[in-house]
Amino acid sequence: MNPNLQHWGEELRLLVEWLATAAFALSGILEAARKRLDAVGVCVVAFLAAFGGGTLRDLLLDQRPFFWVAHVEVLWAVLALAVAAMLWLRHQHLEPTERAIQWPDALGLGLFTAAGTHRALLEGMPALVAVLMGVLTAVFGGVLRDVVCNEIPTAFRDHRPYAVCAFAGGWVYVGLWRSDAPGWAALTACVLVTAGLRGLALWRNWRLPQWQP
Amino acid sequence: MNPNLQHWGEELRLLVEWLATAAFALSGILEAARKRLDAVGVCVVAFLAAFGGGTLRDLLLDQRPFFWVAHVEVLWAVLALAVAAMLWLRHQHLEPTERAIQWPDALGLGLFTAAGTHRALLEGMPALVAVLMGVLTAVFGGVLRDVVCNEIPTAFRDHRPYAVCAFAGGWVYVGLWRSDAPGWAALTACVLVTAGLRGLALWRNWRLPQWQP
Amino acid sequence: MNPNLQHWGEELRLLVEWLATAAFALSGILEAARKRLDAVGVCVVAFLAAFGGGTLRDLLLDQRPFFWVAHVEVLWAVLALAVAAMLWLRHQHLEPTERAIQWPDALGLGLFTAAGTHRALLEGMPALVAVLMGVLTAVFGGVLRDVVCNEIPTAFRDHRPYAVCAFAGGWVYVGLWRSDAPGWAALTACVLVTAGLRGLALWRNWRLPQWQP
Repeated sequence: MNPNLQHWGEELRLLVEWLATAAFALSGILEAARKRLDAVGVCVVAFLAAFGGGTLRDLLLDQRPFFWVAHVEVLWAVLALAVAAMLWLRHQHLEPTERAIQWPDALGLGLFTAAGTHRALLEGMPALVAVLMGVLTAVFGGVLRDVVCNEIPTAFRDHRPYAVCAFAGGWVYVGLWRSDAPGWAALTACVLVTAGLRGLALWRNWRLPQWQP
Repeated sequence: MNPNLQHWGEELRLLVEWLATAAFALSGILEAARKRLDAVGVCVVAFLAAFGGGTLRDLLLDQRPFFWVAHVEVLWAVLALAVAAMLWLRHQHLEPTERAIQWPDALGLGLFTAAGTHRALLEGMPALVAVLMGVLTAVFGGVLRDVVCNEIPTAFRDHRPYAVCAFAGGWVYVGLWRSDAPGWAALTACVLVTAGLRGLALWRNWRLPQWQP
Repeated sequence: MNPNLQHWGEELRLLVEWLATAAFALSGILEAARKRLDAVGVCVVAFLAAFGGGTLRDLLLDQRPFFWVAHVEVLWAVLALAVAAMLWLRHQHLEPTERAIQWPDALGLGLFTAAGTHRALLEGMPALVAVLMGVLTAVFGGVLRDVVCNEIPTAFRDHRPYAVCAFAGGWVYVGLWRSDAPGWAALTACVLVTAGLRGLALWRNWRLPQWQP
């Protein structure tokens, strides 16, 4: 196997993690705003939503340093984002809405799934574990956000496909990786499938199966 | 000390972890069903209940790989169990009950306590830490299950002995290990004491001490 | 740099961690009592409040052994403290109050911030990461305590400065460390600033900024 085909290049990976981090931080900030947390709560929930999934993945894979230790400027960026959002949302008297959270969330879902699956595959994890690491990277930031905000995680209860989209996207990534596709193709396909499925699910109002009452 | 007396053999240990994993996964599935979570929530709560305690123990002891990475087929098994339970419970229109959760839970409690205490003793942990690792292995799957389901963990609030039984069983394990008893004897004694105490507590309606109102 | 100026000496550090551990364990015990948890819940919440923050920090910094493994007598001490508090509080029919929790909490806040920041600086972490590790050490015991008790963590919602005081104290510690101040001076200054700000905030009824309704 050509190693060039297995790596997307450090720069692209960094860009992915920055973009996804900002998207998830914003979803955390909006959730904290809806819960009327104080300034500290807003920042912490932003950190949890942005770095929780990736940090948990790195803890499980025993990888150091964490993304936010190696790139400490990303911590300042999230802090600045939280302060800016608080000031701006205050200024505009904007009522943060569910809808505003959905779009950055769907993008981050795809990007984090690709990043997490990639990292686990590099560590030689079996396919299913790699996909679950991708899902965990993408979903557990939001799970920690909701647990801290004292709600059953949205990902587990709202019956609209969310983690399932990441699960599908993760298998796409593993499949393309295994068939020696270029890294950018695997990344793009994973993001398109994940975010596309999520968008479709919201648009067509797909429902996950549930228990009979 | 004869090393044969200190190890129960890899096969027996594996069997123990499989059995206990299935028992706890089932308790997670039933809890998620009672909470009317969606299919993703059912699977995640099953994973948390089944692997949460052991994974947390391995994180604290800094042990890799995790049980579910080394034996990835157990992940497929839990996934299959969750799907089967959902289909079967739907088909039968079975209302999952507290009572149905109690029995797999009591068995898993004893088995996980033995496994966790054993692992910590192998790592040379002091007796109290080893016992607490056993309790954590047995109880924290359920704690994570309840935290994610947005409840105060049953283990901490229902005043019926649960973690206390595991605590007693852990000391039995440590005592037999220290006195060079055969591994199977320590395992059996720990499981009998833990599950027996739990069964007795439920049957005789024992209550833990509580604060005066 | 003179290494003697960078270390407070092992004895002082141990004393700090014992004092702060007892203060936080007590805050956990009182919280569990207010929630009417059973004896197991009281002990676990005491453990979480006392060791949760430091253990999470050590997990993130990949440090072993944990404080409570290297000094297993501290586990017995917290267990004894929990039992004693339960007996004593029962005997006196004392209604545990918010006010009783505040003072040990403020002291522990300052002490843990210093200990956490110190540990992270020893590991060569960047300044912001070190300060956040200090805040995490000080605050996440209480966060875990509140999450397990099924509440939005007090630290994030009550609009009275808490983590912010630790954040300020952490920067004081980093500043004095960087300017080669003696270890005891950095420790004392950090504790005074943190606990002092917390006390002032409670006394003057300072409020963190919040979202407009």
